Amino acid sequence: MFQIPEGRKLDCIPVGRLAIDINPLVMPQTFAECTEFGKYVGGSPANTAVGLARLGARTGFIGKITDDSLGDFCYDYFKKDGIDLNGIFRAEENVPLAVTFTEVIDGQTNLMLYRDRITADMLLKPEEIDEDYIASSRSVIISGTALASSPSRDACFKILELARKHGLLIIFDVDYRAPIWQSTDEISIYYTMAARYAHIIIGSREEFDLMDSAFYKEEDDEQTANRWFNEKAELIIIKHGKEGSMAYEKNGKRYQIDIAPVNAVKSTGGGDAYSSAFVFSILSGREVKNCLEMATVSASLAVACNSCSDALVDLPTLEKALVKAKEEHGELVKEF
Amino acid sequence: MFQIPEGRKLDCIPVGRLAIDINPLVMPQTFAECTEFGKYVGGSPANTAVGLARLGARTGFIGKITDDSLGDFCYDYFKKDGIDLNGIFRAEENVPLAVTFTEVIDGQTNLMLYRDRITADMLLKPEEIDEDYIASSRSVIISGTALASSPSRDACFKILELARKHGLLIIFDVDYRAPIWQSTDEISIYYTMAARYAHIIIGSREEFDLMDSAFYKEEDDEQTANRWFNEKAELIIIKHGKEGSMAYEKNGKRYQIDIAPVNAVKSTGGGDAYSSAFVFSILSGREVKNCLEMATVSASLAVACNSCSDALVDLPTLEKALVKAKEEHGELVKEF
Amino acid sequence: MFQIPEGRKLDCIPVGRLAIDINPLVMPQTFAECTEFGKYVGGSPANTAVGLARLGARTGFIGKITDDSLGDFCYDYFKKDGIDLNGIFRAEENVPLAVTFTEVIDGQTNLMLYRDRITADMLLKPEEIDEDYIASSRSVIISGTALASSPSRDACFKILELARKHGLLIIFDVDYRAPIWQSTDEISIYYTMAARYAHIIIGSREEFDLMDSAFYKEEDDEQTANRWFNEKAELIIIKHGKEGSMAYEKNGKRYQIDIAPVNAVKSTGGGDAYSSAFVFSILSGREVKNCLEMATVSASLAVACNSCSDALVDLPTLEKALVKAKEEHGELVKEF
Amino acid sequence: MFQIPEGRKLDCIPVGRLAIDINPLVMPQTFAECTEFGKYVGGSPANTAVGLARLGARTGFIGKITDDSLGDFCYDYFKKDGIDLNGIFRAEENVPLAVTFTEVIDGQTNLMLYRDRITADMLLKPEEIDEDYIASSRSVIISGTALASSPSRDACFKILELARKHGLLIIFDVDYRAPIWQSTDEISIYYTMAARYAHIIIGSREEFDLMDSAFYKEEDDEQTANRWFNEKAELIIIKHGKEGSMAYEKNGKRYQIDIAPVNAVKSTGGGDAYSSAFVFSILSGREVKNCLEMATVSASLAVACNSCSDALVDLPTLEKALVKAKEEHGELVKEF
Repeated sequence: MFQIPEGRKLDCIPVGRLAIDINPLVMPQTFAECTEFGKYVGGSPANTAVGLARLGARTGFIGKITDDSLGDFCYDYFKKDGIDLNGIFRAEENVPLAVTFTEVIDGQTNLMLYRDRITADMLLKPEEIDEDYIASSRSVIISGTALASSPSRDACFKILELARKHGLLIIFDVDYRAPIWQSTDEISIYYTMAARYAHIIIGSREEFDLMDSAFYKEEDDEQTANRWFNEKAELIIIKHGKEGSMAYEKNGKRYQIDIAPVNAVKSTGGGDAYSSAFVFSILSGREVKNCLEMATVSASLAVACNSCSDALVDLPTLEKALVKAKEEHGELVKEF
Repeated sequence: MFQIPEGRKLDCIPVGRLAIDINPLVMPQTFAECTEFGKYVGGSPANTAVGLARLGARTGFIGKITDDSLGDFCYDYFKKDGIDLNGIFRAEENVPLAVTFTEVIDGQTNLMLYRDRITADMLLKPEEIDEDYIASSRSVIISGTALASSPSRDACFKILELARKHGLLIIFDVDYRAPIWQSTDEISIYYTMAARYAHIIIGSREEFDLMDSAFYKEEDDEQTANRWFNEKAELIIIKHGKEGSMAYEKNGKRYQIDIAPVNAVKSTGGGDAYSSAFVFSILSGREVKNCLEMATVSASLAVACNSCSDALVDLPTLEKALVKAKEEHGELVKEF
Repeated sequence: MFQIPEGRKLDCIPVGRLAIDINPLVMPQTFAECTEFGKYVGGSPANTAVGLARLGARTGFIGKITDDSLGDFCYDYFKKDGIDLNGIFRAEENVPLAVTFTEVIDGQTNLMLYRDRITADMLLKPEEIDEDYIASSRSVIISGTALASSPSRDACFKILELARKHGLLIIFDVDYRAPIWQSTDEISIYYTMAARYAHIIIGSREEFDLMDSAFYKEEDDEQTANRWFNEKAELIIIKHGKEGSMAYEKNGKRYQIDIAPVNAVKSTGGGDAYSSAFVFSILSGREVKNCLEMATVSASLAVACNSCSDALVDLPTLEKALVKAKEEHGELVKEF
Repeated sequence: MFQIPEGRKLDCIPVGRLAIDINPLVMPQTFAECTEFGKYVGGSPANTAVGLARLGARTGFIGKITDDSLGDFCYDYFKKDGIDLNGIFRAEENVPLAVTFTEVIDGQTNLMLYRDRITADMLLKPEEIDEDYIASSRSVIISGTALASSPSRDACFKILELARKHGLLIIFDVDYRAPIWQSTDEISIYYTMAARYAHIIIGSREEFDLMDSAFYKEEDDEQTANRWFNEKAELIIIKHGKEGSMAYEKNGKRYQIDIAPVNAVKSTGGGDAYSSAFVFSILSGREVKNCLEMATVSASLAVACNSCSDALVDLPTLEKALVKAKEEHGELVKEF
């Protein structure tokens, strides 16, 4: 279905935040009661990059980190996973890396996005985007968070234009984070403009509603998907929380994806694990149905762990988990 | 050629800056030597709106002005010309209206854009854009200046999306003003994204080069035009200063437009007069060649006057001037 | 009374805004009805500098202007009046000079401060303040407007510290302009801190109330004056609009100053003329009573003119006007 | 010596940052190698408040924290130590609490001030300062960090004015943190203006040099102290790193203070412990010499602990440590 270029140096370049999570070493705990915290690489596209690399994809990254011990930790973590580091920049300005504190209060995961609106990742500049780097990859994933303000927003649109020029598969992972945006219309406008470039759009029902809010009201999944099929999109994934997710192909196929059995200790990290497994599988030439199975099992493994990035697994582990999940649950994905 | 909706309340809505020029009452003079200054409505899309209205188009406007005597003057000036005022907002913030001082030094026009980067026009918010107002018009003109920063930039993209949704003819008038932009890549990115929506793009060769700079290098007019014909564009006008301009139609027709005979007292205002006469003529259903004749004669009338807005004429005057210009100059537009 | 150093190169250095007023050539008029405008040097401390120079004081200035034709006009205007230009800097940033449009509506003067909060004058940096320049003057006048935001605020406090170190007579001219301040407490705090350095404080009753607002409530003139006499102040002038002004000396003398007969065409410019004549007279060693006479007559001449700066006169003209005013009005200043 | 008011509800109100430190549970470690981190209340004036309270002073605080779990932790920590919470505000804006990561690299303590320049503490507004709260205390401590930007800077000067009005003992603890300041002149200006109000000034030799830099060059301790004795100061403490510190009284007495024996695991926290013990002792009416002994022993206890705030002790513990330190070291303070 997808036209994905072959013979390139990299399989995928996620774009956006590479940052640090400070989580209780043992989850679930509140910030107040926890006395031992761990440090973890975080940021939705960073987790996706780690997930892709562990599964075996030749993975790059475009983002900006600080020139301090926290930035060094991120850089070294990526290095250990074999991620190509040529698209990672260091902020010259005196800004912090984005730090997120996670806690669980009464069963609810509470993310404290610890930063002002200006963190190193939001200072990625369009001048730093190298056309050759984009042209060296088969695909690119834009995280919606990177669209929240300029110059990072500008850099993303430069990447999207260059990705289009060089024929990359373009994935838009909406990844909405409320505190970094100014207004609902702004969200709707820039999500919509990024989504126009995308062959694959992944988001929750709420995220698609947000994307449409300035232009279209009260659509159902089918309407949403069909509208995007008039643009460049060929596959739309719409998540419905605990009820699983739906996938729509331009060719008419529809899939209902159940959530794999899981003992969750927090609600975060599942989305990134889902995206990384799904994109890896697509790039491997697997059937869409199988890609979706891989994605949902990957998500279930991630939410059972204390951190997002440390929880991401290699291909044999994921495939084994998929077999086991099907044994316990039956078919995870229904096509109709 | 163009699919322009009929049966709407307005013919055209220019979008962007509505501001004030302080010019010497008698041009040419330097600021230092001038002792008597006049006040004039200015701002490229504002001049275009005035031009359209005087020629007989039912004209609206979307922009933001200050809530003081300078804003009142702009508002009343538009009212006198019969421009629909429902899309004009007042800034609640304590910001100035954009004021431009014009002088001529040694034959060169010097514009002093008198403002910080944040003026009332740049504070137009996407929340203020009303879908019904967009839907009530046959066409919309986006001025590139309004793209220079958020929230005005965001409002423009909302307008472009809504204009596309409701089938308006979309004109993008590049109108580059250097001091309000941050970087060349930023210009290139947002010009490109706006131009993707446009059926007609009007700019100088330098402006098209700027638009391409992050993505394409050293194109000639023919290459530029053909690339945009792969998008939504159907007509591209590229200006070459004193050597006139070139127009390219998607259907293959090409036109060379000479500058009509003129005694210029300044170099500004010609572009707005050109755009207003051209768009008016297109909306009237005239042949492209005739539209281009009207445009170039309108420009020549404008640069012969002390102000931009006061110089704009009605249809009989423009048509008479066109007849006279052809008598003096011969054919103004050559098709080939 | 005052300890004023002798044998210095300059008599006085006013500090703060040097800018441009755009006024109707003939006052009174509204902006809407006026078709011929003039350009004038403006800014309260700039007017005071011009007034001082015309009366014969060796006058310097510390301030920042733009590097364009408007800045050049200010610079050349000062040069023509023989003002020392070594303390005048040019903004490197892309900011406008402060421009003020004046109009008269129904007898009320309406100042439109045409600028964002950041104009060239507010970008004066403490690093630009030269200790030797301060040390070369007998006195300094701080205009309260220059305290409204950093870095100009910081530069003023550096000047005040250095003026104290080198024994200059320090005059604080409150000159409140509402739109450039953020909060009443901020005004009160920084006015108070500047006033602590001053030997002479000049303000309206409203301005003294504003200065006190975070710390003291409902004082009368006598209480206000006595409180400042516990600091460095030796003379306090409190203006009461149309009812004239009061002067309080630390030694116990009090003066009531009437307004000299005048045909005012606007309400602005009087304060600057007042300050310049008063400070000139103090520096000349005149009796306080005579200083106050000179000041009130100077103010009456200024409000009768279309501009603030062009209206300022030389010493023989001012002395002649004082004689004439006394003939018409009787004693202008009563001591008690 | 000092005139300290009696009969007030509180002994002391420190002013400034109340924040969080994320330190390795076991010091010394680098960020990279550490896998278990602890959370601690931090911020120099916050540590001083905790130290004062533990020693038995009736302690208040003025500062601003976030309205999230991190802010709650600070609030509850203070509450447990019996600190009066009426001067603690919550930021309404979407800003982070200041978070500091501490690590030790090759024996050097590396503080990563994890924040943009705008953190909750810097948003304390002058409008929030209550005159009655200031008037209810015997003394106030201004931390220099709170002067780094408006509106916190403005709030500090309001506090200083009110403290002066109500006769509080005013202590200025310089506490220089480089990354939050814009320029050296700015530091020098606002340190100087705050120091003018102070009866006691505590800083390192480098901090006093920084304070003087815009106005005075190359002073020795004696010159510095004497210059401040011309203002309100009565006692000046100048620290010389590993060589201990010097104290100067206006009455002519001088003290050399040695560093008490210590096994330091980091270099931070000593200053706050020093200030809290010194101010507590002064407020208790102890001899200056004894106050200085208490201070230096308190500092040595603090640098031997993993955190700053958890290390602060009660009075019996401190007095016992003083006895022990004198046994090991001999006299800690020499008067001459």
